[in-house]
Amino acid sequence: MERNERMSGTLYGLGIGPGDPELITLKALRILQAADVVAYPAPEAGDSLARRIVAPHLKGGQTEIAIRMPLTVARFPAQAVYEQAAEDLAAHLAAGRSIAVLCEGDPFLYGSFMYLFGRLAEDFPVEVVPGVSSLTACAAALKHPLVSRNDVLTVIPAPLDDETIGAKLLHTDAAAIIKLGRHGPRIVALLKELGLAGNAHYIERATMPEQRILPLAEVDPASIPYFAMILVHRRGEQHFMEFQS
Amino acid sequence: MERNERMSGTLYGLGIGPGDPELITLKALRILQAADVVAYPAPEAGDSLARRIVAPHLKGGQTEIAIRMPLTVARFPAQAVYEQAAEDLAAHLAAGRSIAVLCEGDPFLYGSFMYLFGRLAEDFPVEVVPGVSSLTACAAALKHPLVSRNDVLTVIPAPLDDETIGAKLLHTDAAAIIKLGRHGPRIVALLKELGLAGNAHYIERATMPEQRILPLAEVDPASIPYFAMILVHRRGEQHFMEFQS
Ligand SMILES: C[S@@+](CC[C@H](N)C(=O)[O-])C[C@H]1O[C@@H](n2cnc3c(N)ncnc32)[C@H](O)[C@@H]1O
Ligand SMILES: C[S@@+](CC[C@H](N)C(=O)[O-])C[C@H]1O[C@@H](n2cnc3c(N)ncnc32)[C@H](O)[C@@H]1O
Repeated sequence: MERNERMSGTLYGLGIGPGDPELITLKALRILQAADVVAYPAPEAGDSLARRIVAPHLKGGQTEIAIRMPLTVARFPAQAVYEQAAEDLAAHLAAGRSIAVLCEGDPFLYGSFMYLFGRLAEDFPVEVVPGVSSLTACAAALKHPLVSRNDVLTVIPAPLDDETIGAKLLHTDAAAIIKLGRHGPRIVALLKELGLAGNAHYIERATMPEQRILPLAEVDPASIPYFAMILVHRRGEQHFMEFQS
Repeated sequence: MERNERMSGTLYGLGIGPGDPELITLKALRILQAADVVAYPAPEAGDSLARRIVAPHLKGGQTEIAIRMPLTVARFPAQAVYEQAAEDLAAHLAAGRSIAVLCEGDPFLYGSFMYLFGRLAEDFPVEVVPGVSSLTACAAALKHPLVSRNDVLTVIPAPLDDETIGAKLLHTDAAAIIKLGRHGPRIVALLKELGLAGNAHYIERATMPEQRILPLAEVDPASIPYFAMILVHRRGEQHFMEFQS
């Protein structure tokens, strides 16, 4: 594929922050409003969370592309969706149109933008605009410092197996367990088993109107959504006291 | 200490992003410009990096407090500085004045704001505004995805000993080594020894005008600044290829 870079539009991976529309950066806002095309992930049917986050900032008149992901955990249908989306976006870029791909939080921290990036970065100019990640947004909303001094921080996806997660939790100062959803009951049980439940803070939909913060003991494990996180400090409340000295 | 919360000003820990003034959020900008007092860390003599980042956004007319930290690695002088700063800020808060404390990147990710938070959060209303952290800003500038799918991410402060750092590096999918500075030579040697040098990306002063990206082999270990980071992917370039499938 040979292309004239001067004619091509730029593909922007736009970090739009964790949910509060005011947590978008000035840079992402400028690029969002100037882009010819706005693309975003969306469920098979229904509204896109990413689009909802930027809705107050959209002026109308831009071409919009919803990248609809079938509700399945299998990898191959997702590949087909990204393949098709990359083709659609490539046509716009080749025609000189700029595209802003909306990414909840930050694009390169577990963001699905990577799959478009991997398919398009060799042929078109790409820029990645970092965003406020859910990691630090959750700590801020909890009013609980994440890491300080020489603490080690480990980010652990909940779909990993208990043994792996347990080993990580016992060998770090602070941990964020992400992608909870249907793995919630297993993770809550594991934290109790490891004696870490008292050091864990639960939060869902941070910075969104639906934000909920609960003591882990009061969480109904069966109804933990995907947009939830557990932050764990191995030293527990002692950790907090240290900031006073 | 008894205070009337209704009379007190609010203390804001403001994440101002990694360096580019355009990477501040709308929320932080609004609070910055409305605060009665703007406080920021600064070296013993000379300019504050945090103040430089927000300088284009300051309208003038705000009270400014530079929290000057002596150039020492000892902990006790720092404690005395935070103790004094907390007292000064408390007087403003008690008088009903709001204070924006500037924090490079995000306040709760290794930010010094925690030491003020620890001293003031019990007596005054405090809000923490998350910011774009250097972690994701470095990955974006490197155009290298940080973590995807079920990758584990570990953030490792360089002052830890080699054995600890080595063990972390070998048991994670991706790692960010922060706080390099004078630990740079030791870390570069360790990465070579572990056979990870080829999987490491070096970047300093990301998103600032002085940003530098270098292959690790070309880095002069003796001149690595504090505002530098090494990102390591255990699976190396294979990791990158995965986004294409
Ligand atoms: C695929 S990852 C994407 C992370 C995103 N790119 C970021 O930078 O925050 C999705 C996971 O992030 C976490 N997450 C994202 N937004 C969140 C929010 N507003 N509140 C709590 N957790 C959130 C949840 O654990 C969720 O399962
Ligand atoms: C005390 S930590 C503060 C981190 C900050 N609160 C954040 O959220 O990014 C300082 C370390 O962050 C990293 N860092 C901060 N800003 C950076 C930048 N613009 N470029 C590269 N590394 C940076 C460096 O490793 C530095 O030693």
